[in-house]
Amino acid sequence: MDSLHNIYYFIELAGTFAFAISGATASRQQGLDLFGICAVAFTVACGGGIIRDVCIGAIPPAGLTNWYYLVASIAASALTIGLFPLVQRLNHPVLLFDALGLALFAVTGSQKTLSYGHNAQMAIILGVTTAVGGGVLRDVLLNRVPVILRKEIYASAAIIGAAIVVLGNYWNLPGDWVAVFSLVTCFTIRILALYYHWNLPSSGPIERKD
Amino acid sequence: MDSLHNIYYFIELAGTFAFAISGATASRQQGLDLFGICAVAFTVACGGGIIRDVCIGAIPPAGLTNWYYLVASIAASALTIGLFPLVQRLNHPVLLFDALGLALFAVTGSQKTLSYGHNAQMAIILGVTTAVGGGVLRDVLLNRVPVILRKEIYASAAIIGAAIVVLGNYWNLPGDWVAVFSLVTCFTIRILALYYHWNLPSSGPIERKD
Amino acid sequence: MDSLHNIYYFIELAGTFAFAISGATASRQQGLDLFGICAVAFTVACGGGIIRDVCIGAIPPAGLTNWYYLVASIAASALTIGLFPLVQRLNHPVLLFDALGLALFAVTGSQKTLSYGHNAQMAIILGVTTAVGGGVLRDVLLNRVPVILRKEIYASAAIIGAAIVVLGNYWNLPGDWVAVFSLVTCFTIRILALYYHWNLPSSGPIERKD
Repeated sequence: MDSLHNIYYFIELAGTFAFAISGATASRQQGLDLFGICAVAFTVACGGGIIRDVCIGAIPPAGLTNWYYLVASIAASALTIGLFPLVQRLNHPVLLFDALGLALFAVTGSQKTLSYGHNAQMAIILGVTTAVGGGVLRDVLLNRVPVILRKEIYASAAIIGAAIVVLGNYWNLPGDWVAVFSLVTCFTIRILALYYHWNLPSSGPIERKD
Repeated sequence: MDSLHNIYYFIELAGTFAFAISGATASRQQGLDLFGICAVAFTVACGGGIIRDVCIGAIPPAGLTNWYYLVASIAASALTIGLFPLVQRLNHPVLLFDALGLALFAVTGSQKTLSYGHNAQMAIILGVTTAVGGGVLRDVLLNRVPVILRKEIYASAAIIGAAIVVLGNYWNLPGDWVAVFSLVTCFTIRILALYYHWNLPSSGPIERKD
Repeated sequence: MDSLHNIYYFIELAGTFAFAISGATASRQQGLDLFGICAVAFTVACGGGIIRDVCIGAIPPAGLTNWYYLVASIAASALTIGLFPLVQRLNHPVLLFDALGLALFAVTGSQKTLSYGHNAQMAIILGVTTAVGGGVLRDVLLNRVPVILRKEIYASAAIIGAAIVVLGNYWNLPGDWVAVFSLVTCFTIRILALYYHWNLPSSGPIERKD
């Protein structure tokens, strides 16, 4: 399975980079300065993982000690600042990498939670948190209601991915194959949702009384 | 005191449910989707407790491993989505349960902090955080200034509840009776404040210079 | 070096107070009530340090157990509420203390991270977080895009301060002198940036497409 782990490693780098690009692009559109763009890109890339690691007791959090989250964030910021037209043209590959990152982080997030001895419910919640937490923090910092709470099949794909990992672990299925199956399922759902513009039902804004 | 602990258990379930209802209602009013409504309801129900547990070193946080926070959040979301007119008519019982939850979480939050060996100041701060932290996170996610920072006697009632627990512990009074006295005091203050529309003084918005 | 540590202690108190003043002033301008003003002042004073302590495994966080963060926050809130014209006239000393606090928290934040055995990258990230995290939380609670992500040389000065500490530690230079050098450098950059209105480059808000 060595080649599988090489593929994981490539997906992790590409996914982190895609997450960072989404942070850098959104910050640039809001007129943040150099530091702000890098800080938000870094927050998207590793924010979810840091919350997970703090909750499972994995100190220090991987997002703060591994060099590639920081390097991916700085590279994504540099690209977004220096070559914005290119980044805009890269929209499609970035959405693809983002879906890959979503799937991988849901899988690895729930696996890591289980490997620290925590229960199934916590593994699903923190798998999803790893995958979508950074994007929620991005939107909170940029002062808007997090987009993943409002529309699109994004967190839902991560829930399904994390649940597959938890079920596979419960039934003692071979971990690597469960991970691949979960990854492909989560990625496919996300890509189909993007392509067909699937959304979860919502009631739409109604008049507020408070 | 067995019946007392049964009462606690009922209050904890009812309070968690009331907190989740407040999250689900506010999210529905902002037009969040199914996942967003459940996620915000869950955040209100256990957000304060998770912050407390991370700060006192109680890993894993109870809010992530106990099934009833999640079930209460999903039930509250389902009710809010499917039977919104009913939820609106339930406004008064929900405010009552919310006041019960506020009082209970302030008491149990400060008790748990003391039981982990931390000092009185930390027990009061984290008792209040347990009680109001989820509501603050709800308002941050929904992109508005947290209501408990602006008006109403809400956090103040929790401060008094937590302070009673800390004083009772300092004077070695019997824990169960202190808890009941603290619970009733905090609950009564909150209900009186609701009934008579008490607010803390505030300066009102003034012109900003920045 | 005893007198040096007395100076540290004075700077820590003055810096904490200046941070709390910035929180209390901003909250008062948004019309928060008494509790809200104290809560935001306290968040600015110790929010960054609490995030650092949770990430490095220093439980309980110093910001929750040390009395002076809380006392400085309450004093700053009382002053801001009772003597607002005085606080406005104190604008210049407050900016000075704020710069001192920024520099000291960047230095002590990165030192504490290193002393817990974590690596250089984490020491720089958490040094900066200690210095600017509270201000970011203040702006999130007050529902605006954090000012340090948008303009001014503020976090950048903290990065340089933290990097000097890390380099000094790497080269085994005497810790006290490195700390003083880092403190003076960070403080000077911040004061020059204030005086000459230095800003990092930013692209300015552009039309959003989402």
